[in-house]
Amino acid sequence: MIQTLEWTKAGVRFLDQTKLPTEEVYVTCRSYQEVADVIRGMVVRGAPAIGVAAAMGIALGVESSRAQTLEEFERELHEICRVIGETRPTAVNLFWAIRRMQEKFQSLRACPLSKIRRGLVEEAQRMHVEDISINQAMGRHGAVLMPASGGVLTHCNAGALATCGYGTALGVVRAAVEQGKQLHVYADETRPFLQGARLTAWELVKDGIPTTVISDSMSGAMMRQGKIGAVIVGADRIAANGDVANKIGTYTVAVLAREHAIPFYVAAPLSTIDLLTPEGSQIPIEQRDPSEVTHIAGKPITPPGVEVENPAFDVTPARFVSAIVTEHGIARAPYEQSLTSLVRAAADGHRPPE
Amino acid sequence: MIQTLEWTKAGVRFLDQTKLPTEEVYVTCRSYQEVADVIRGMVVRGAPAIGVAAAMGIALGVESSRAQTLEEFERELHEICRVIGETRPTAVNLFWAIRRMQEKFQSLRACPLSKIRRGLVEEAQRMHVEDISINQAMGRHGAVLMPASGGVLTHCNAGALATCGYGTALGVVRAAVEQGKQLHVYADETRPFLQGARLTAWELVKDGIPTTVISDSMSGAMMRQGKIGAVIVGADRIAANGDVANKIGTYTVAVLAREHAIPFYVAAPLSTIDLLTPEGSQIPIEQRDPSEVTHIAGKPITPPGVEVENPAFDVTPARFVSAIVTEHGIARAPYEQSLTSLVRAAADGHRPPE
Repeated sequence: MIQTLEWTKAGVRFLDQTKLPTEEVYVTCRSYQEVADVIRGMVVRGAPAIGVAAAMGIALGVESSRAQTLEEFERELHEICRVIGETRPTAVNLFWAIRRMQEKFQSLRACPLSKIRRGLVEEAQRMHVEDISINQAMGRHGAVLMPASGGVLTHCNAGALATCGYGTALGVVRAAVEQGKQLHVYADETRPFLQGARLTAWELVKDGIPTTVISDSMSGAMMRQGKIGAVIVGADRIAANGDVANKIGTYTVAVLAREHAIPFYVAAPLSTIDLLTPEGSQIPIEQRDPSEVTHIAGKPITPPGVEVENPAFDVTPARFVSAIVTEHGIARAPYEQSLTSLVRAAADGHRPPE
Repeated sequence: MIQTLEWTKAGVRFLDQTKLPTEEVYVTCRSYQEVADVIRGMVVRGAPAIGVAAAMGIALGVESSRAQTLEEFERELHEICRVIGETRPTAVNLFWAIRRMQEKFQSLRACPLSKIRRGLVEEAQRMHVEDISINQAMGRHGAVLMPASGGVLTHCNAGALATCGYGTALGVVRAAVEQGKQLHVYADETRPFLQGARLTAWELVKDGIPTTVISDSMSGAMMRQGKIGAVIVGADRIAANGDVANKIGTYTVAVLAREHAIPFYVAAPLSTIDLLTPEGSQIPIEQRDPSEVTHIAGKPITPPGVEVENPAFDVTPARFVSAIVTEHGIARAPYEQSLTSLVRAAADGHRPPE
């Protein structure tokens, strides 16, 4: 099993996703600032993985805190959360994880500091374990949506590497393959960061799932040739109305899917659903460094002086989304109702089967 | 002015487009086989430039021919045309140029061999000069279609570098800018060969036309944000019904343009219109080497063992095409009639203004 991130005695260990697929190297963070850096630098990426990384970063920070009083501790926790919270603005799982750690602190504030520290470290580790079982539940719910055989297109990486293991969109693919479905994954390479070519292909080849990498510009032609039976992607934030923020290019794939009457599915844990954001236009979109577009592997591909755009995400309106797969079941339009119901059912204590 | 290709005393000189934008180096071919190699290796690319390169390759071959008899000469010409004709299957300008050189030979076959040789060399040089004036005429016809100001999206490179100068799609942009229109070009980077990032950006920056390079996956988001007022692209072959074969990813852009009610224009000389091919599904699509997808700048971006697809072109059905700009005027649907009329008018001797 791929260990995307892991709590170890030496610190939080991350598989360095900027080096894949050519090098499989690990980075161990010994401070919360180092965790913030690896999130910002996309050593770890993918909304669910970012969430757990944030929680572990907070745990690391409070574990090494020298605070002697609750007041001091709370001030440090606040600062740690502020630094971690400023790494990446779009993935709502980051803020969900910070809130969960803050709530855990509140529930423990009557305890001695040593117990609070231990409690927060355990909470971060629990989130890691939960994330994997959430993905497996998502896989069970979503597998039924996959065709019995044929091509399934995915964009970016919503796999084991975007989570603590198994994956969201690729978790659904894995579950379908485990059920005997004969799927062939078409992976958009996903410029500028090449998550599809580098990461999705790497983890699917490892699992023996047939995979074809295509340039992003080829997905339309593949659909027109009848090679794609379904599209499944992850999400970085889903607004209350079902609008989906996901890796730049997802919207293009959704428009193409509708043109070819191909179902377009999104797989994401409930922690990605942001009921406080009514619609997609209100989701903040991260603009990343122009050098991701102007350079590949350190080599310039554009002439000096040219402008570039580099939005990391786009928003796919809910009307393009055939269904949203969560660990608590499948939501369909109208999403205002279906998403709220799922989130409420989960809050009422119906935990996903583990 | 950019010299994409040029007949020189030393041979046919090409600006090496595989090296742009970081290096501006030239390659001089001294034999027709070398010309075939540079066409195949995309040192020169773009349908109109491929056509003239083919003619110059043939001229180079016959110029150095040692044939003593017409029969010998004809056999050599046939072999030269065969080799040049096997370089790239999609761009119909290649076959148009070969046919034009063969027709020139037929018109001269009563002459002494020295005169035939000179006549073929002159014909190739004439095609070079004509190509530029054709592009300028296309620019005059097409400029009216461009918005008075704002963003125009293009895919791949249909500029000076795809022709003998001025360009087809970018010729229309240049003519519009010369008329005082305030255009800002959005250039899709155009993976896998990066013609947009490397070539379109290079020649537009040289000309001082504001240009923003985007990853191919960003065009949908740019349209949704209202940044694009029109799309204009070139073509490698246009079927009699108006279906357009062009660089892979063009179809995706066309689908996106229609979704956003943005006009989608194609600019191409009449030599790109293939009335013998009734519709797009009959256009042969070149499959190029997988390494163009799996590697960038010599570095692998995919894991070993993964499959890739690498079709160099796709076909955009005529129903997505708002208009086709040619040197003889603008064709609109139904294209069966409008394209045939333009080709007939040209054959009747109405040459474009020079």
